[in-house]
Order: sequence, then C-alpha cells, then structure tokens
Amino acid sequence: MDRYELKAYKKNFEYSYSPGAFPTFELLNKRPQEALGVLVSPTFTEMEKLKNVCAKHGIEVWEDEKRLSRLSDKENVFVMGVFRKYAQELSAADPHIVLVSPSNMGNAGTILRTALAFGYHDIAIIGNAVDICHPKVVRSSMGAMFSLRIQNFETFEEYRAAFPDHAIYTFMLTGKKQLTVEEAMKQSATPFSLVFGNEATGLPPEYENYGTSLKIPQSDEVDSLNITIAVGIGAYLFRPIG
Amino acid sequence: MDRYELKAYKKNFEYSYSPGAFPTFELLNKRPQEALGVLVSPTFTEMEKLKNVCAKHGIEVWEDEKRLSRLSDKENVFVMGVFRKYAQELSAADPHIVLVSPSNMGNAGTILRTALAFGYHDIAIIGNAVDICHPKVVRSSMGAMFSLRIQNFETFEEYRAAFPDHAIYTFMLTGKKQLTVEEAMKQSATPFSLVFGNEATGLPPEYENYGTSLKIPQSDEVDSLNITIAVGIGAYLFRPIG
Repeated sequence: MDRYELKAYKKNFEYSYSPGAFPTFELLNKRPQEALGVLVSPTFTEMEKLKNVCAKHGIEVWEDEKRLSRLSDKENVFVMGVFRKYAQELSAADPHIVLVSPSNMGNAGTILRTALAFGYHDIAIIGNAVDICHPKVVRSSMGAMFSLRIQNFETFEEYRAAFPDHAIYTFMLTGKKQLTVEEAMKQSATPFSLVFGNEATGLPPEYENYGTSLKIPQSDEVDSLNITIAVGIGAYLFRPIG
Repeated sequence: MDRYELKAYKKNFEYSYSPGAFPTFELLNKRPQEALGVLVSPTFTEMEKLKNVCAKHGIEVWEDEKRLSRLSDKENVFVMGVFRKYAQELSAADPHIVLVSPSNMGNAGTILRTALAFGYHDIAIIGNAVDICHPKVVRSSMGAMFSLRIQNFETFEEYRAAFPDHAIYTFMLTGKKQLTVEEAMKQSATPFSLVFGNEATGLPPEYENYGTSLKIPQSDEVDSLNITIAVGIGAYLFRPIG
C-alpha cells in the first residue's frame, strides 16, 4: 500500500479505516494479515506499543498528521489503521445475530460490540443495509468487527437456505410469545438465529412465520425500544457464554 | 411567549425545544401545561392533529418555516414544541434509575426512553452531567422525558440522604456479584435504585460499597458494554412491569 494513494473512504473501496486507538489495536491484534498500514500523529501517546505490534507483523507506520486529519474526517483521531476488506463465512455450528436492513452506522457498530460481549461471533446482514465496513461502524464497534465473522445475504430466504438447521427467533412488536428467561434458556444447546429489523420499520409481518416470534415486554408509554437495546436484551438472555 | 424572542438553545435558558413530531406530541399530550407554543412548517403532514391538540390546551401554533429551520439547528425537523423547564421530585415509593455523570446526549435520551419502556418513572442525575433538557436529549428520548420525573443531585450522598430506604445496586465491571435473573427478581417488591456510571469511566471504586455491586457477565473479548446496553439489561431484569 502506498499511503499517498489513500483517499477519503467510499463504499466501493477495497480498503477501509479503523479510526481511534482501540479499534486500531483490535485490527493489529486480531486481523494483522489484513492491515495495510497505520497513520499516526506524532503526538500519539502509545507510539512505542504501536510500533512494536506493527514491527512484529511487518506493518508500516506512517507518521503523517496531515493525511490522518484529512482522511479521518476531522474527528479527534490520533491513530487510524488501513485494512483490506475481507470475505467471511458464518459458522454453521454457532449462534447467529441476524440484522435485516440495518440503516444507522452508530447503531450497527454498537450491535457488533454488544454481540461480541455476549459471546456471539457470527453476524448476518440481510438486504439493503448500512456499509458494515464504513469507518464510522468500525469506530462505534470499538473494533469488535475484527473478532467477528460478518456475511451479507441479499434476502432472508438466501440466509435460511445456507443455515437450514438454525432455530429462528424473530424480535417483533407483534411477536406471538413474550421473551422470557425460560424461553431463552431452552435453546442454548442448539444453534439459533436471533433476528432483528430496521431501526424505523422493524421486521415485516411475514417474519412472524419464520420461526418463533418474540416480543420483549414493554410499557405502552413508549412507541418501541431502540434497536440496540432490543438486541442487547435478546443477545444477553440467549447468550452462549456463562 | 413571543416567538420573535426565541433563540438558539442554551443551557441557562428557562425554556427548551422538542424537535420532531413524536417528541412534540409527547409534550402536548403529557405536559401541555409546560408547552409555550409550537413552531411548525406549512408542509407538516399532521397539521390538523397538531392544531386540534393545541386548541384543546390553548397552545399557540406558529407556522414559521424560517424560524423553525434556524432554531432546530438544520436538522430535518418539521415541527418543534417550545416548553418551560420544570422542577420534578422523585417518588420515594418507586424504583429509580440513577445516572452518575452521564456525558453523551444521545445516550442520555436513549436511557430515558428505555427506562420508561420498562416502567420506570424516576431518574436521578448525579454530579456534572449532560444538560438533560437539551433539545438533542429530548429528541433522542423520543419525548419519553415528558412522562418521567427527573431530579438532579450534586453528589450521590445527597441523593442517598433523600432516599435512605432504597436498596442500592451499582453496575460495575468490578461488581462483586454477577447480575442474574434470580438476583433481580428478589428485589421487585421493595423500592430500589439501579446506579450506572459515566460512558468512558464507569463508576468510581467507592460505589462497590454503597449497596450490592453487580457485574453483567460479558466476554473478555470486549472492553465493556455500551452504557445504554448495560442500563437496558439492568432495567429489563429488575423491571417493575410484567
């Protein structure tokens, strides 16, 4: 990689960025083989640690404040990795978090971080969705994405055909069962998929019939939960870790 | 209120704004006595509904696209209420969500919305904190704040002295007990306080000794949960509603 060729991120690029120290160290430690270089400000406080891990993996470190500031979109960023986008297939033996048409980058990142926190390593993204490799998603995931397998599917049917043995749980305001601890506990031995809809529109009605539809009990004083909270509660109750 | 005197929001104002349709209708339906008027674009799609509810409570409707656009800070806002800030005292008989030095407006709003969703009506804010009346908080709470009592305290000691009978649960990465459903269930009959720290720093160590300190079980593959997710899970498991 030639740092002089780096440009402000666009979706069709074959590379992306990890803005911030935490996401960049996650990249360097979890996916060093995809790291193409690191832009850093001379004032970065963890320079020695950065140079050590980069030397270990033969990754270039570019002290280039100007380029960093321009490419990181004016945020307060002192270090940013450059990484090659990579293809990932989900594990058929493990539980999945399935996001149908997620549209907000901050929410997507928070969901990735939350999934990893509760021991999930497989994320399916269905349909028209946020660009999951966008630097804003990387940043709001705190680099969690470098520990995850993330796979895109055009339709839910395509996903379903690839993983026919997963028990499907769809989270909907019109869910037929209340989400309870008992319901969640029953399933922990078999591979399962927790399916969540778009921030504004939720899941379309046909998702009531794809498996077990669950409603998180909530007061009628609010319209709905924020999607990240719904995923957090579902992922926590079903969690594969102790 | 004279609409020509309205200015871009500042923390020291005696009034604030509710940007967006959902937050504005929440204001008009839940706290009409504090509504000072409503700025609306002539293109707003729910104009009749808006005028009806305002007429019912004698609230002025100002069709003034220019002022709306200027005061709503360029967001895509078609309607925005103006409301008088009001003092609120927490209920001693009910459970509380306690936020120590929350610093992010979007997170604060999401937490208010989540609290209300699980049947909490009382929120304590401790110490140096985000301006909870800021229009961005109102908007990200989806107007939930108009259904809540929210009270500020300078210190946790001051809060504790005001509500000495509440059982205290502090959520910390260093919590001595794991958060479990059983632990949460035990407490549903007595008034309790769920205490959460700042986004970046969590709760200071002395909070381990204020009551029962709880750790939400999570993988060591992540640094921590996002604060809104931690509140969501805690509020859900302890929830006063069924």
